[in-house]
Amino acid sequence: MKLPEKTVERLSEYRRTLLSCIAKGKTHIYSHELAGIHNITAVQVRRDLMLIGYSSIKKKGYDTQELADVIGALIDHEKGLNVAVVGMGNMGRAITSYFNGKRPKLNIVAAFDVDPNKVNRVIAGVNCFHMKDLLEISKRYEISIAIITSPPDSATQVAEQLVSAGIKGILNFTTIPLNVPDTVYLEEFDMITSLEKVAYFVKTKDE
Amino acid sequence: MKLPEKTVERLSEYRRTLLSCIAKGKTHIYSHELAGIHNITAVQVRRDLMLIGYSSIKKKGYDTQELADVIGALIDHEKGLNVAVVGMGNMGRAITSYFNGKRPKLNIVAAFDVDPNKVNRVIAGVNCFHMKDLLEISKRYEISIAIITSPPDSATQVAEQLVSAGIKGILNFTTIPLNVPDTVYLEEFDMITSLEKVAYFVKTKDE
Repeated sequence: MKLPEKTVERLSEYRRTLLSCIAKGKTHIYSHELAGIHNITAVQVRRDLMLIGYSSIKKKGYDTQELADVIGALIDHEKGLNVAVVGMGNMGRAITSYFNGKRPKLNIVAAFDVDPNKVNRVIAGVNCFHMKDLLEISKRYEISIAIITSPPDSATQVAEQLVSAGIKGILNFTTIPLNVPDTVYLEEFDMITSLEKVAYFVKTKDE
Repeated sequence: MKLPEKTVERLSEYRRTLLSCIAKGKTHIYSHELAGIHNITAVQVRRDLMLIGYSSIKKKGYDTQELADVIGALIDHEKGLNVAVVGMGNMGRAITSYFNGKRPKLNIVAAFDVDPNKVNRVIAGVNCFHMKDLLEISKRYEISIAIITSPPDSATQVAEQLVSAGIKGILNFTTIPLNVPDTVYLEEFDMITSLEKVAYFVKTKDE
């Protein structure tokens, strides 16, 4: 079964909340609590969990650890997946520091750049390699996902190099929309949209 | 009329595409082209534009400049809104450089930190002030939106200070979920979800 994108998004968000509940010692959560935190209806939460075959709600609500594990078994890769960051400017460094350690099944294992001041150094905890070694390093480190944080004018070329190197999933942080073959999953990540949403609702609050 | 969140999100995304068409000299676009770029149906695109009262489709498709302007008039604040970034670590600097200049109606005009090495300096093109001056600077610069990129353990306190200073919209880049009064619009921004989506579709491609 392949889940719809929006369902995967919500499951990932539920798990984030469940992990934060677990960290706080909260062992159970009701569907309406989960719904409230995510600004959706309890019906939506129950429908999502039904879709993944999870229905073991108790009087006290869902078991937070059990549900986090069920979601993990479904969305995580069993052995974990290795990730590379391409472009170690401010954004690349920020993202690497932010991600690493957050999810045991997703690890940023290498970085790439073309700047001689960055190549062959450890930056934000990972080895930074030259882009010309992308193919070799990707194979050696079994990298299947790449995050593009390069300057916009090189994004298209970087994407082509990643596809040639056998990368299967790309998260694009640049403002340039990319085109990749159907065999590669692409997620475009746009911070401007998030800020524009905030601005719209601030504006309409005034009205 | 207050538009639903998802509609605002899509309108912002359409505009990003329209602006990139305009930059490339493309004067018209069909609903099915817009739909294809955003991985949705042409019916969805037409429904969104009908909702905002835009139906002037020509034989050649929508006029890219006209549609970008219509969306702008709807989602942008007429005079523009001023934004502050709280926390000038890697993420704060990356976001400031990324945003500024992208949208004329949204400007990052100030930054805040508590680190004496950052306060009273210009970082990523904006003045960095001490958090203790938040209220005064927010008023002076007419700041209505804040982006939180502080360390996670200070996020809750930062959010409280922002609310007290009269900030009306918050974009939270930390991994800590925040609670704010109903008078403040909060957008939680989670990069992990985007990466987990990519990982899920990479995994299911293998299957």
